[in-house]
Amino acid sequence: MEFDLIEALRARTRVARGDVALGIGDDAALLEVPNGMQLVACTDTLVAGVHFVADTAPADLGWKSLAVNLSDLAAMGAEPAWALLAMTLPEADEAFVAGFGQGFAELAARHRVALVGGDTTEGPLTITVTALGMVPTGEALTRSGAHAGEAVFVTGALGDAAGALRFLRDSGIGIRDSDQHAASTCRSALFQRMLRPGPRVAAGLALRGLASACIDVSDGLLADLGHVCTASRVGAEVEIEALPVSEALRAAFDEASCRELALAGGDDYELCFTAPGESEAVIMATLAQAGCRATRIGRITAGSGIRVLDARGRALATPRKGWEHFSEARARRT
Amino acid sequence: MEFDLIEALRARTRVARGDVALGIGDDAALLEVPNGMQLVACTDTLVAGVHFVADTAPADLGWKSLAVNLSDLAAMGAEPAWALLAMTLPEADEAFVAGFGQGFAELAARHRVALVGGDTTEGPLTITVTALGMVPTGEALTRSGAHAGEAVFVTGALGDAAGALRFLRDSGIGIRDSDQHAASTCRSALFQRMLRPGPRVAAGLALRGLASACIDVSDGLLADLGHVCTASRVGAEVEIEALPVSEALRAAFDEASCRELALAGGDDYELCFTAPGESEAVIMATLAQAGCRATRIGRITAGSGIRVLDARGRALATPRKGWEHFSEARARRT
Repeated sequence: MEFDLIEALRARTRVARGDVALGIGDDAALLEVPNGMQLVACTDTLVAGVHFVADTAPADLGWKSLAVNLSDLAAMGAEPAWALLAMTLPEADEAFVAGFGQGFAELAARHRVALVGGDTTEGPLTITVTALGMVPTGEALTRSGAHAGEAVFVTGALGDAAGALRFLRDSGIGIRDSDQHAASTCRSALFQRMLRPGPRVAAGLALRGLASACIDVSDGLLADLGHVCTASRVGAEVEIEALPVSEALRAAFDEASCRELALAGGDDYELCFTAPGESEAVIMATLAQAGCRATRIGRITAGSGIRVLDARGRALATPRKGWEHFSEARARRT
Repeated sequence: MEFDLIEALRARTRVARGDVALGIGDDAALLEVPNGMQLVACTDTLVAGVHFVADTAPADLGWKSLAVNLSDLAAMGAEPAWALLAMTLPEADEAFVAGFGQGFAELAARHRVALVGGDTTEGPLTITVTALGMVPTGEALTRSGAHAGEAVFVTGALGDAAGALRFLRDSGIGIRDSDQHAASTCRSALFQRMLRPGPRVAAGLALRGLASACIDVSDGLLADLGHVCTASRVGAEVEIEALPVSEALRAAFDEASCRELALAGGDDYELCFTAPGESEAVIMATLAQAGCRATRIGRITAGSGIRVLDARGRALATPRKGWEHFSEARARRT
């Protein structure tokens, strides 16, 4: 790289933390983990054309590259602290880096995350963020603690990001065009959720001691609740009519599409968690204090697999579980 | 990805560590940093065609992707503990992952590094490793501690990896061809250094309390010693005849080329460090116990910049400081 991109980002992402003994600028960062806390570490990569469409604004990409990692920390009930950024760019593009840094810094400041290291390399556009956080020893939320008989909850609303992606794919226009020409209120809301997902950090912290298992919804509810079931060796039933769907999604799609998007669409970064049903009132009140609402959507069962039930309790055929790759949208557009 | 590559790697890289409370398989890893230790964190990316030639064996790539990060930890005097791996692959290639995992695991086992998390994505071949280690609080080696009057040292030998790269570039053949057809002993040694660099972990640990500043030689001696000078606000003089050069490099190149490769060639992953000259005997003895030799190559001066001196103490014109990008070798071959 012709100029030091990480240095440029460092200037934009200055977050003062007393636990950073040495930040960007040496061979490695030196960080302080207080006694009684466990370190929580995760890494996620975004690849152009796979995880985001090619004309995504750099600021949105900066935000999202951190958001997807903070979402993983949130799912553990961890408090985010530090991040490392590995950025591969086709060329040293100062405007790109400035925009990226702005979006990254905006979210980092919101959660007091210090950028403590990174690497910039030349190559196809790929962003890998490693996020580090902390949780009191033994208090982390995991995927493996769900028990038969417990209730299943999800924060916020599901399907918005997948709805935005489907709109892009079906309309054949780009994100920037859609901003300018098709910015009905509902679509704006969906795009906002796709481009600037808000990791449920406060909710994750609030759920410590309350949730028995937790995961973030990145691949889609069915897939991610499936991970909880596998790790916990249980099954689950989901009531399709209970799934929380936003007004924006309802305004943009018919009911069948809304349900499919809520069940299988990924990229929402809500938390799906389990807890004894009798905790519901406490959970709702605690989450409300954290600025988050949640919905009870089903129950954990003995056995394995997920059944989706209609209003009369009949099992429905479930749509494919996977996540709609951005590459599909891209393939249609090129 | 069609199958879970990280799971496949996990099976190959099982290192038992009591400080991994939760490893691969949840939203994030849970790790224990003992009281009195600082966490040391770094990340480095390898891009196909930039940091390694396209026909590099997967096992070599696995080794090197971890080695370059352990080298950064070594330069801090840190003991490596954990790694996260973000791997972007054009397709879910089981043979590639098996080979990569073997090389990665070989080096990880040597240094008791546990792979605790990762992400696999589809896209152009790019590998980002985040390495985490520990150092007793306040004992880390940094770039900023050098003082005028101190001596400059370097471990091992310089220029071998750059020599291998130059051979590839000049001969126009690939790595695998060179293995088979041109494997003279000296060239094998150079290729080994390029493909399987040995991070100086033991030397880094041994230098705690002895070195005043330290860096690993990844971009080339002039560039990396330059980083120490900048961070420490000092200059340096390097005696060209003192530079340690391997027998293998001497056998393959003339003296002028050897010197240029030793001064400016990158990718050797030796440690360059500073210390009071009177510590030399203690340092050499301590490093010898750690299985490493070092050479005194110059001194830190007041002021700024690096002067390279010949046997008579005259300043020489220095070659370009940068690192020879693999992309040059590739460009010549395609």
